[in-house]
Amino acid sequence: MAVSRRGTDVADLVRRTVEAEPRAVARLISLVENDSPVLREVAAALAPYGGQAQVVGLTGSPGVGKSTSTNALVTSLRAAGKRVGVLAVDPSSPFSGGALLGDRVRMQDHATDPGVFIRSMASRGQLGGLSAAVPQALRVLDAAGCDIVLVETVGVGQAEVEIASLADTTLLVVAPGFGDGIQAAKAGIIEIADIFVVNKADRDGADQVVRDLRYMQSLGGRHSTAGAWRPPIVKTVAARAEGVDDVIAALDKHRSWMDEHGELARRRRVRAAAEIEAIALGTVKLRLGGVHGSAALDAAAARVVDGDTDPYTAADELVARL
Amino acid sequence: MAVSRRGTDVADLVRRTVEAEPRAVARLISLVENDSPVLREVAAALAPYGGQAQVVGLTGSPGVGKSTSTNALVTSLRAAGKRVGVLAVDPSSPFSGGALLGDRVRMQDHATDPGVFIRSMASRGQLGGLSAAVPQALRVLDAAGCDIVLVETVGVGQAEVEIASLADTTLLVVAPGFGDGIQAAKAGIIEIADIFVVNKADRDGADQVVRDLRYMQSLGGRHSTAGAWRPPIVKTVAARAEGVDDVIAALDKHRSWMDEHGELARRRRVRAAAEIEAIALGTVKLRLGGVHGSAALDAAAARVVDGDTDPYTAADELVARL
Repeated sequence: MAVSRRGTDVADLVRRTVEAEPRAVARLISLVENDSPVLREVAAALAPYGGQAQVVGLTGSPGVGKSTSTNALVTSLRAAGKRVGVLAVDPSSPFSGGALLGDRVRMQDHATDPGVFIRSMASRGQLGGLSAAVPQALRVLDAAGCDIVLVETVGVGQAEVEIASLADTTLLVVAPGFGDGIQAAKAGIIEIADIFVVNKADRDGADQVVRDLRYMQSLGGRHSTAGAWRPPIVKTVAARAEGVDDVIAALDKHRSWMDEHGELARRRRVRAAAEIEAIALGTVKLRLGGVHGSAALDAAAARVVDGDTDPYTAADELVARL
Repeated sequence: MAVSRRGTDVADLVRRTVEAEPRAVARLISLVENDSPVLREVAAALAPYGGQAQVVGLTGSPGVGKSTSTNALVTSLRAAGKRVGVLAVDPSSPFSGGALLGDRVRMQDHATDPGVFIRSMASRGQLGGLSAAVPQALRVLDAAGCDIVLVETVGVGQAEVEIASLADTTLLVVAPGFGDGIQAAKAGIIEIADIFVVNKADRDGADQVVRDLRYMQSLGGRHSTAGAWRPPIVKTVAARAEGVDDVIAALDKHRSWMDEHGELARRRRVRAAAEIEAIALGTVKLRLGGVHGSAALDAAAARVVDGDTDPYTAADELVARL
């Protein structure tokens, strides 16, 4: 069993993660989240274990009840015997990590349940975006045998689109009184949602929200093809757990549809390609300034400053020498 | 004279830009801003003409009077016979471009002055950050013979630091009642400012702001070395043009100091290196998905999805084949 130089026994951590041991899961997420020296080792060790979990993105404006919905979904999934992971990604928070179990007060219903893994993540270094560590954390939860991983983010435009790129299934949570239908249409969110959840459905205006969503769907036209997925609209009152089983049924249905149509594999390939590309660019960046010699970059910069060349030509020369 | 395939006569545009013809300047900025097919041709043609302008970044919280200060500086610089460029970068606006002269109401004092070039730019695609096109637009204004280019941005944390990375001289504009001193210290802005402008100096609390800044400077210690630049603190009432000539004197003094100490060349090399690196990464990104063949990336993604490899190993293999 290989023990890395910092004394982290990655193989042992991965073995214990696959056995769903909470402390091992927490430790592995910390390792991938903090870009540790053993990140590559962890990724390689995790590779064989992925692919079982359905990654479900929850997005929507602040106040529509995303956290309440997440909480209710976890309760319902646990009642059905499912193992559940929750990643709460907060693009506005500089804080990350925390205890794996019960690090959020509102999730404390599940804090002592060994079948639920909960983790908060910040979006380090990427303004308004999801953390680059999120895909790795998803892999850890997947390896831990989660049937479903819920990724919840504060809905702030870009993050809503990014969450869809990470998820197998994207839930858009809306509620009466938020003008969400219109806003979602503007932001292109209608196009990325696989399931619409109209929460707080006991309030005035819920039926109007449903009609607005239907109308906007009818305009889209993307779902008119035979066999295409037509995003269902599910009404819930998450605070009273009403309609939550309908959401879970919709999740199951979407997973089955994706399996049948090769869509699950397609989405995951697109996701993996984006991830590989980001990692490759990071490596190239290091090389341009590091291994490749910052001397070459400095010399090129001096020539640009002196007017002997332009930055595009200089960049092309550097890339040619990579 | 080479005429590109889209019929843009770049060499002619550059010639007319060097002659400070407003329409040519506007057209060239539009070309670099919109990432046009002739971007590289423009950059190459501009290379010999740069380096004369002092690029001055103005940063500070909304409401401290940055635009009023910019306007007053332009008036004063014009009275001294200087040619002036103004780039107003708005990280929150999706809108860019506009007429070169007089596209902002508040700058209309200068709208008909052929010695002033004014341009608004959005920060396309980079949340909270400055547009990648800003360095190119600066080159155009430099080639047009501007003695000074003022780059004004809405102060929103990250943008304040980014503007300093683009500028030869960074002005931090503060005002009484904004708690700016403390905020700037927190954000590390104190460290990047070359000149402090305390605007609205006729208001209560202005002297306290000056004392706060002096105190925080004394804590920094960076300026205690012999020969080091000690950022001056200049009081202004920009709306009445009071103190503006003192700001211009401070700008001149900073430029002279940078010339004497090799700091101007050093800053410009750092800036050029960052720009080259960003362009190189963009090229590599295109290659990974394009020239290199998205087939290779897709195949790697499929192997990751199947658990045959991990994204880091896949990325390393792609980079090795670049």
